[in-house]
Amino acid sequence: MPNKTPPLNKVVIVGVGLIGGSLGAAWRAASFAAHIIGIETNPAAAEQALQLGLVDEISTTVPADAELIAICTPSHLVAEQVEALASLQIPMFDVGSVKAPIIETLLAGGGVSPFFVPSHPIAGSDRSGPDAADADLFAGATTVLTPLVSTDNKALQQVESAWRACGSEVTRLAPKAHDEMLAVTSHLPHLLAYVFMQQVDPEHLKYSGGGFRDFTRIAAANPELWWRILCMNREQVLDAAEQFAAHLQSFTSALENNDEVTGLAALRAAASRRNQLDD
Amino acid sequence: MPNKTPPLNKVVIVGVGLIGGSLGAAWRAASFAAHIIGIETNPAAAEQALQLGLVDEISTTVPADAELIAICTPSHLVAEQVEALASLQIPMFDVGSVKAPIIETLLAGGGVSPFFVPSHPIAGSDRSGPDAADADLFAGATTVLTPLVSTDNKALQQVESAWRACGSEVTRLAPKAHDEMLAVTSHLPHLLAYVFMQQVDPEHLKYSGGGFRDFTRIAAANPELWWRILCMNREQVLDAAEQFAAHLQSFTSALENNDEVTGLAALRAAASRRNQLDD
Repeated sequence: MPNKTPPLNKVVIVGVGLIGGSLGAAWRAASFAAHIIGIETNPAAAEQALQLGLVDEISTTVPADAELIAICTPSHLVAEQVEALASLQIPMFDVGSVKAPIIETLLAGGGVSPFFVPSHPIAGSDRSGPDAADADLFAGATTVLTPLVSTDNKALQQVESAWRACGSEVTRLAPKAHDEMLAVTSHLPHLLAYVFMQQVDPEHLKYSGGGFRDFTRIAAANPELWWRILCMNREQVLDAAEQFAAHLQSFTSALENNDEVTGLAALRAAASRRNQLDD
Repeated sequence: MPNKTPPLNKVVIVGVGLIGGSLGAAWRAASFAAHIIGIETNPAAAEQALQLGLVDEISTTVPADAELIAICTPSHLVAEQVEALASLQIPMFDVGSVKAPIIETLLAGGGVSPFFVPSHPIAGSDRSGPDAADADLFAGATTVLTPLVSTDNKALQQVESAWRACGSEVTRLAPKAHDEMLAVTSHLPHLLAYVFMQQVDPEHLKYSGGGFRDFTRIAAANPELWWRILCMNREQVLDAAEQFAAHLQSFTSALENNDEVTGLAALRAAASRRNQLDD
């Protein structure tokens, strides 16, 4: 079979920005779906996604015979999309970086559709929009699914295979556990990078090297999007920030007191932990 | 002239690790010196530098006819090297990331040799050793010289041209101004990345993406080296850390109080400043 039949015939991507556009590109590269439909309210982004071949078609509605829906809107807009699409009984997932508040919003409304599989690919960029889309964005990245007991098993498997088709590894966490985890691994770093940039003036930029660029890259991310994310995960982010402030206080005290035993131990533990990552 | 004569005949690099090795590679690529001599007390590093062609020869002493000496030891060892080599009256420079304490140590001793041009290339890597050396490490990077009134003008020009030969842009600052600047653009980011890693456990690493990797990369840098740097620039680093802690407190308060006006303004200012950098 030189040309294998794609596993799915018709899939829909709601929001064809960085993440949605990358999903389209990845699915196309993997021949995952015969037909990829994009829904996009921003006409310029819609046109761009079409021209870049991230989707085959732009539509304003989800066709009844679609087999999978990717909701790639910002986190705070996911719940209303899920509610609007629930009656179609088509497997669907989101890509939001905060999970429990979405589920709580749905529970406070008409309940969580069993066809909705909350998911979050731990991949991104400080860039945004369809022109930043990348078929390899999810390759090797971990995608976390946070299904509920009520989640339909077939929908869950469909969503898992959709992520695996992008080259992503798939794992599962409880929604709250996901949010606590990401508060430390993503939301706090963004917060710290943004806060650090408060004290950087244009003159400083002239004396910045590669380390500075790496450390501050995430501070270039969309401010409106990130204010929403930090607010949605407020409690966990504030806990993580409090823990950071305590460690900062402890380390600066060691530095102030020339306490090499404490200070160097902290630096060594940090470097050793960081060196557990490949790059 | 297809084979131009190198501007210098004999140069010496003391310490052929990442920085010294990269200088050797860059000077070789630029045909800056006919003969590059390395001085290196670590036999494995010496052998590696030789095999990689970063230097032409390993020696234990600086020959009297050398025309330039690059002191590429860690910052806290620079002053004693400068003192030991001052009587040769050969132009020399260091590469330490803290400048005023080196000059103060020299002033407290026998004075600062007019042939010593304090310098700092704002380039580096979390990697170290000759095998991390890179002929392009300084290309496009800024190198700051912090000469004194007593610095010999010919030595200053020699050192400037040595950095320009590596593709570096050269600028000048007063030693204290350099240390205050770098406290913000380099020392504080390292401190923050190290401190952040204190609250990261192995489980977190499984849920880390590209943003996390970028943000924490500098925490993989050598702990002993960085404890020394932070101590040498203690006052400026503590000032910068205090300013950071105040901004952190202000931002987390805004988040806690759902104060979108303050919070979003901070994120926007940060992103706007970061976007002034190219990447």
